Amino acid sequence: MTRHSPRHRTVRAASDHEVVFGRNPVMEMLRGSAAAVRELYVAEGSQGVEAILAEARVSGIRIERVARQVLDGLVAGGHHQGIAVRTKPVAFVAIEDIIARAPSLFVALDGIQDPQNLGAIIRAAEVLGAGGVMLPKDRSAGVTAAAIRASSGAAIHLPIAQVVNLARALVDLKAAGYWSVGLDAGGTSRFQDLPTIERAVVVVGAEGRGIRPLVARACDFTVAIPVRGRVASLNAATAAAIALYEMAARVLPDPSGGPVR
Amino acid sequence: MTRHSPRHRTVRAASDHEVVFGRNPVMEMLRGSAAAVRELYVAEGSQGVEAILAEARVSGIRIERVARQVLDGLVAGGHHQGIAVRTKPVAFVAIEDIIARAPSLFVALDGIQDPQNLGAIIRAAEVLGAGGVMLPKDRSAGVTAAAIRASSGAAIHLPIAQVVNLARALVDLKAAGYWSVGLDAGGTSRFQDLPTIERAVVVVGAEGRGIRPLVARACDFTVAIPVRGRVASLNAATAAAIALYEMAARVLPDPSGGPVR
Repeated sequence: MTRHSPRHRTVRAASDHEVVFGRNPVMEMLRGSAAAVRELYVAEGSQGVEAILAEARVSGIRIERVARQVLDGLVAGGHHQGIAVRTKPVAFVAIEDIIARAPSLFVALDGIQDPQNLGAIIRAAEVLGAGGVMLPKDRSAGVTAAAIRASSGAAIHLPIAQVVNLARALVDLKAAGYWSVGLDAGGTSRFQDLPTIERAVVVVGAEGRGIRPLVARACDFTVAIPVRGRVASLNAATAAAIALYEMAARVLPDPSGGPVR
Repeated sequence: MTRHSPRHRTVRAASDHEVVFGRNPVMEMLRGSAAAVRELYVAEGSQGVEAILAEARVSGIRIERVARQVLDGLVAGGHHQGIAVRTKPVAFVAIEDIIARAPSLFVALDGIQDPQNLGAIIRAAEVLGAGGVMLPKDRSAGVTAAAIRASSGAAIHLPIAQVVNLARALVDLKAAGYWSVGLDAGGTSRFQDLPTIERAVVVVGAEGRGIRPLVARACDFTVAIPVRGRVASLNAATAAAIALYEMAARVLPDPSGGPVR
């Protein structure tokens, strides 16, 4: 059944409730992404979990005491150390609904493979002020527990749309007034060369491989970040964050009310 | 004994030869950081390691076949799956020697705790054109195998100096013509507000805690990256990369010979 929320229409769950288990991962989730946590499970008789339970209580997270076998089943054979959390589900939204909300900054990921990179990009996008993320249906890491953790919970806040054809979606965005800026090591522009833009979609390619030719052709500009070192390239998430920072400075007002360049 | 190299004087080894083991970590190291690998060890009779050996051969890495017990000893009880690499040692250099080489861009890390973040910052610094990294002797992650891997081997190329007193080192750098730009969530400037600078040291604080007050007071400027989201902050390595990108654009020529802003 399609669920309706005041914020956006859920197309389908991007992930079921994801489970994070083990003491360090759970503590990290509670400290960095408490807003993404639905409930905490602790196995009866667990020792040394007081700090974790205290952290959960501070964030108002419901704690369920369960038999150890229940946890065993929940983590499907993983080494849970008596503790696990279930995250809130990440909901994919329709690309049309994101466009209808007209965010000035948007990000399209052309096949990011590593959930850590996916989460890191979602975090940077959310913090820097993007209004949504677009992923291809195939050839992309899923919005798994690992990605949610790496996003510091930002994957719960930021609308994420799944599209069948990324190049076509860029054409639709263009019709809605967006300019698409592809990040590419072989790009012909620098950010400072771009004309004044009101709405932008930053297009990021896969690790190593970059943007696919069909997607690159749908971009209005391809921009390269100047590199000078002996190591070949920036990490995909680092490059994406720099591009989002640059484009945010161009299409969004300064959050402090300070000068906008 | 102090070793002298044509490139820089080694103060002391930042790390002994670090060992990376297990099939996925070793393959990742060979693919991303082959230049940092000294040799590969494979346990006699190991099955299914052909792709790893082929990758090592492509990079000209020496392969040693050893008894399984030798590997057991090398990884101190870790689960090596018959395969390990030893990295080249990372050598700390004297801060004076880095200053003598007069790089236009330099980075000072005030207590980064996570080896992944340390490695990611070293990678971004190297790729974006910084000439060195400065770490405090205490309160910092070490340049371990995890950090070297996260740096994609950049930790082997980029001169790294260890200092006892970071605030004092910033004063020494100021005397050598450097302006220090601290990255701080409460910073009073934006990058575009900075005056024209010829040499810059970017100062990055620890995860969560930021730059210590004594170090912040030694900075000529404190700059904040505009944030707009519901998630509190950028990852420390992401923020550092954005700051390095911004300062590189100000103090280094564009590598393509294109426009410098």
